Amino acid sequence: MGMRASARSSSGVALQDMGAVTSRPDRNIEWRNSAVSKFARAQMKGQKACCLWFTGLSGAGKTTLANLLDETLHKDGFHTYVLDGDRCRDGLCRDLNFSLEDRMENVRRVSEVAKLMVDAGLIVMVSLISPLILQRQMARQLFEQNEFLEVFVNTPLAICEMRDPKGLYRKARDGLIPNFTGISSAYEMPKNAEIVLDGRLKPNDLIEQVRRSMARHALVRDLSV
Amino acid sequence: MGMRASARSSSGVALQDMGAVTSRPDRNIEWRNSAVSKFARAQMKGQKACCLWFTGLSGAGKTTLANLLDETLHKDGFHTYVLDGDRCRDGLCRDLNFSLEDRMENVRRVSEVAKLMVDAGLIVMVSLISPLILQRQMARQLFEQNEFLEVFVNTPLAICEMRDPKGLYRKARDGLIPNFTGISSAYEMPKNAEIVLDGRLKPNDLIEQVRRSMARHALVRDLSV
Repeated sequence: MGMRASARSSSGVALQDMGAVTSRPDRNIEWRNSAVSKFARAQMKGQKACCLWFTGLSGAGKTTLANLLDETLHKDGFHTYVLDGDRCRDGLCRDLNFSLEDRMENVRRVSEVAKLMVDAGLIVMVSLISPLILQRQMARQLFEQNEFLEVFVNTPLAICEMRDPKGLYRKARDGLIPNFTGISSAYEMPKNAEIVLDGRLKPNDLIEQVRRSMARHALVRDLSV
Repeated sequence: MGMRASARSSSGVALQDMGAVTSRPDRNIEWRNSAVSKFARAQMKGQKACCLWFTGLSGAGKTTLANLLDETLHKDGFHTYVLDGDRCRDGLCRDLNFSLEDRMENVRRVSEVAKLMVDAGLIVMVSLISPLILQRQMARQLFEQNEFLEVFVNTPLAICEMRDPKGLYRKARDGLIPNFTGISSAYEMPKNAEIVLDGRLKPNDLIEQVRRSMARHALVRDLSV
């Protein structure tokens, strides 16, 4: 299993949260935390809960890399999950279309779910084009310091379009898909992503790069050492 | 830690899912599962992923019981999480009001998140009034057989109103809160809930009842034996 993320005992951490009540009179809502903190849940698995946010063009390799990372981390005993933007479109976000407004709402919901999963102690990998800096900032601000790593899968548009695994670029070029990122809609490159991956390199090498970076951020132990 | 939920090896289970591709041509979406299945994720913790859906009036004790169960299961090494309806109103569902339509959407989103968390291998306790049979059916159909247990916290309205922990019944009686379940909006009693709890009894005894029922459904081992 993974490293010990904290020297504090499970019960010690849990006690800190007991009885924490947040009152929201404006909404007639008040809630009481469970006495089990996210540290206690994550510590159970010897990991630090966090969100790795994969952003990049369609076809850049986000989901492939997130799934590959998921598999290697799982093999090493970490408790992980991939929140795939496409998959969320099938369920949680199936009422949304691809207008700018709905894409903002899509990012908002996915980031809120990622936050809940991090609260549950998981290492969550989000795979979502999330083309705007504003969208990624919105997601980031839900998390604590060092709990959110932006992973920019930097693959040139020409290569994504050549790969075109879902035939979407062709449809977009034919005018069949409006607001398609990179073609008829902007992708704003991240300026301060914690991790930048050269999408032209081999997936296994890129995964190693992510794991080294996670180890540097003390999220998982570095198995390569 | 918990029991072994399955005799299959982690890698054996994982291989079953490899390369499963679902195509959705109508939405230009195609996704590939991670090779890590929910069985593999849950097995890592010796549990069976499931959703316990606590329904009942405001003040019935849903969240109190869900949190108490969360704490006892966590203490015994299970990986659990409480999805509190009120808490989701603060984040994922903060764009929704309390109209019938928005309450339907609220239940839909919470159930979709619960499904994702079960897919991640967790034992998820949802605490949500979810007053309509239709709403609870909608949630149930997202899950596989024996993966969804409806827990009816059956506390008489008079007692909930006497407790009135958030002062909501008083406001509802004064006409300050529209569509308040039990007062100005219906609560449809479950007819086939897997677990019915008498909300007048002691929380610790009710938790024991839930755990025995979970053991009967082979979700966790019975620690009381």
